[in-house]
Amino acid sequence: MSASDNDVLTALRSAFTPGTLTTDAAELDAHAVDQGPLEHWQVHPPLAVVFAESTQDVQLLVRLSCEHGFALITRGAGTSVSGGANSTEGSVVLNLTRMNQILAMRPEDEVAVVEPGVINADLNAAAAEHGLMYAPDPASYRTSTIGGNVATNAGGLRCAKYGVTRDSVLALDVVLADGTLIHTGQATFKGVAGYDLTSLFVGSEGTLGIVVGVTVRLRHLSAHTETIAAFFDELTTAAQGVLDIGRARVQPAITELLDRRTMLALDEAQGSDLAQRGDTLLLIQTDGHGAAIEAEIIREVLRALGALVSDPGSTESERLIELRRHARGDGIVNEVRVGEDVAVPRSRLVDYIRAIEDLAEEHQVQLKVVAHAGDGNLHPTFSVPSSELGTDTGTGTGTGTETRPDDDAASPAQPEAAPVTIDATEGGLPTSAVSRLHAALDGSVRLALEMGGTITGEHGIGTYKLRWLDWEQSAEVIALQRRIKDVFDPERRLNPGRAIL
Amino acid sequence: MSASDNDVLTALRSAFTPGTLTTDAAELDAHAVDQGPLEHWQVHPPLAVVFAESTQDVQLLVRLSCEHGFALITRGAGTSVSGGANSTEGSVVLNLTRMNQILAMRPEDEVAVVEPGVINADLNAAAAEHGLMYAPDPASYRTSTIGGNVATNAGGLRCAKYGVTRDSVLALDVVLADGTLIHTGQATFKGVAGYDLTSLFVGSEGTLGIVVGVTVRLRHLSAHTETIAAFFDELTTAAQGVLDIGRARVQPAITELLDRRTMLALDEAQGSDLAQRGDTLLLIQTDGHGAAIEAEIIREVLRALGALVSDPGSTESERLIELRRHARGDGIVNEVRVGEDVAVPRSRLVDYIRAIEDLAEEHQVQLKVVAHAGDGNLHPTFSVPSSELGTDTGTGTGTGTETRPDDDAASPAQPEAAPVTIDATEGGLPTSAVSRLHAALDGSVRLALEMGGTITGEHGIGTYKLRWLDWEQSAEVIALQRRIKDVFDPERRLNPGRAIL
Repeated sequence: MSASDNDVLTALRSAFTPGTLTTDAAELDAHAVDQGPLEHWQVHPPLAVVFAESTQDVQLLVRLSCEHGFALITRGAGTSVSGGANSTEGSVVLNLTRMNQILAMRPEDEVAVVEPGVINADLNAAAAEHGLMYAPDPASYRTSTIGGNVATNAGGLRCAKYGVTRDSVLALDVVLADGTLIHTGQATFKGVAGYDLTSLFVGSEGTLGIVVGVTVRLRHLSAHTETIAAFFDELTTAAQGVLDIGRARVQPAITELLDRRTMLALDEAQGSDLAQRGDTLLLIQTDGHGAAIEAEIIREVLRALGALVSDPGSTESERLIELRRHARGDGIVNEVRVGEDVAVPRSRLVDYIRAIEDLAEEHQVQLKVVAHAGDGNLHPTFSVPSSELGTDTGTGTGTGTETRPDDDAASPAQPEAAPVTIDATEGGLPTSAVSRLHAALDGSVRLALEMGGTITGEHGIGTYKLRWLDWEQSAEVIALQRRIKDVFDPERRLNPGRAIL
Repeated sequence: MSASDNDVLTALRSAFTPGTLTTDAAELDAHAVDQGPLEHWQVHPPLAVVFAESTQDVQLLVRLSCEHGFALITRGAGTSVSGGANSTEGSVVLNLTRMNQILAMRPEDEVAVVEPGVINADLNAAAAEHGLMYAPDPASYRTSTIGGNVATNAGGLRCAKYGVTRDSVLALDVVLADGTLIHTGQATFKGVAGYDLTSLFVGSEGTLGIVVGVTVRLRHLSAHTETIAAFFDELTTAAQGVLDIGRARVQPAITELLDRRTMLALDEAQGSDLAQRGDTLLLIQTDGHGAAIEAEIIREVLRALGALVSDPGSTESERLIELRRHARGDGIVNEVRVGEDVAVPRSRLVDYIRAIEDLAEEHQVQLKVVAHAGDGNLHPTFSVPSSELGTDTGTGTGTGTETRPDDDAASPAQPEAAPVTIDATEGGLPTSAVSRLHAALDGSVRLALEMGGTITGEHGIGTYKLRWLDWEQSAEVIALQRRIKDVFDPERRLNPGRAIL
């Protein structure tokens, strides 16, 4: 530890009580990483962790950061799957999970004001008492915080109908890099005074300021939902089904597509027989007062395509959508995976899945695909069988491979699903397998861009996806973002090294 | 005209053909003002107007602006009611109305790509052929351009259900202040790569760059709508009705509130008897596959409050909502008005209207109120009778008063509604009346802020509302916005003097 690191610790100890500040090694390690892919040489535990309990705590810490120049890594539950919450060398982690109060619930205005550490599911539980919901529903909703959701502009299953996090955030309280507290936006659904700083902060991954308060718009919690499972012989027909539902002018709340290999994995884990019933599965949920009418239209549309469609009130459909929602969707652990998060215009879903199937074959890796098909957001998972594990000592090229959920984050209800980083330098994976996974992954990202898509639909850039950012963004856009960063944080102390190049 | 102005004109003439460039006095005058309040001494016709026909034209003009330092005022149809399109001394106006092509219509993706000069209604007509709509519907939709809508983050009647312009813009092509063309955002519904530059440009009133292409999300055009007219004895009960509809978890597409004086004005203009039926009118429209179910719930909810509620299929209700949608809602011209655009949390609608009624009485001005009640966006109109006109030569203090529609802009279907600026220096209005109107207006804005609202729900700051911006925004937020402006346009050549302080 350097002399200046010691100065930082001394300053922190004089500013915060032992209950708020920790330098315990286990805590530092736990705060070094999130749930994104990471190699051991990329792990840099912070000097200390501060568990802020108030905006004043945050401001105090930011001012110490100004004075001493240390980097400040702000963190909620650490469920980022893109390395958005990894700490950096010599940094201090600001943990906001103790700022977890719902400050106001205004059901008549359909608005709530929360601290950043409120868990997404807790906000939903509080809203449900008033017949309301907070719409953005990342797979991590049981563990992830609203602050983290805001940092990544988190998505989820319901986005095609209800929008992403940005569409539910009306106003923010933000501590700037110099410790100033500002308020952006409005508590009303409409408001156009000045630049949209609120949207600029949403999705900026904590690099422009530290969100200490969030005013969110709530939506109606539907008393009526109908869930449909539809099995198709062909992926092509299932994707056509997604478009035909749109053409029938029905907007489902949820439209999930699962490919054959995902069904096989589910069958193996759950003892079900999904894969015997078709090649591709669509799971669809309608809600609102027209839910039954919309579900009947959808059933007709999908039957016309030859699909095997569940009857009204199917409990299996409900169970399947909960499985898809909460967890990685299967129990397989005997493989090494890399999951992706691209989005393409939904008319290209078939083309895209066909193309990555070819890619998987070319690189001799296995592929499973689930997609939020309504908005063209895909989570392909490339893997190699565990039989390739442990047969080679590897060379230490960054793998970014891991055992993890298909989707956004692990669920606490399934602790066995916690991600395990496979480290190629410590005898995990043969180099050839690493190379093949990487080649497939790079290829899949490039294909998404070629089809008019994006490298990240909802997980964020973090540190992990920086490698692809200039495939999507022009030099001019990258330069503009840097200059915006300079306006907010010229010394690059806030969450350095992520979100932008 | 100065020597440097002559240099500018020489440079423009060598760059653009006579068909693209004009210095015709009538054209310059027409491009000097928009539909916002303006005093004669604030009118500064531009040096020239360039009717760009391509992105290359825009880039060429921007580069000339760099070289010669002239301000560039970008304009669509000029329907701003906040002075967002007024020209400044020595400026050149960039008119984008000839860039009016729909470049792509992709119904399967529910996405369109348009040039900025496309009229909102034309985009809707093209989308309707595919059963789709472009949701943001400012009252100016028959004349205003998508580029202008983007510049102001325009709202309209359908926003509580379908969001404002920002919620329908996925990606932008923007010419920056140095002539560089960039692309922001994604063509997919989800996308979180980098900072949200798209939202930063939306609502920035052309001060950060010139939008030359807009990728919009389309929504389903409902085949089913139901319209309800409900008359209430008391404003309080009507406002309760808005909240009770929310509590029944119904989200109407449209929820308009009209007060008694608005009904009286409509009756006078249309020969109807609305005001005999109640004190306050709610006009509500449901859409989507559940429209009939939702309408029945709403009718029950409102009848339970004692309202006189129209029967299903009421043609009068349909007619009323079209009147409210298209036009200022009445035909009265014998008064001088100032209209506002505040928004408050909708639970405060009653408190707000009661408070401005008191304000109107205190300042001896008349008041009419219409509101997009579903999102708390109010358009109060303060007026003095025309009997006070022309009795005093005035003193030339800025009045900002005018004869104009209650709402966003005049409709071409009602050319008689074109606004007439009342100029206090040329014998229009007595000083006392001006002062009273101003006092009422200022008071109404301050009340909205005190109730947690905003000074502009959907019209934008422009030049006219700059006077109130620092009532809403802190010094720190104002400073941040200036520094963002510096990043994009350090020489302040793009639409100077509006949107931010």
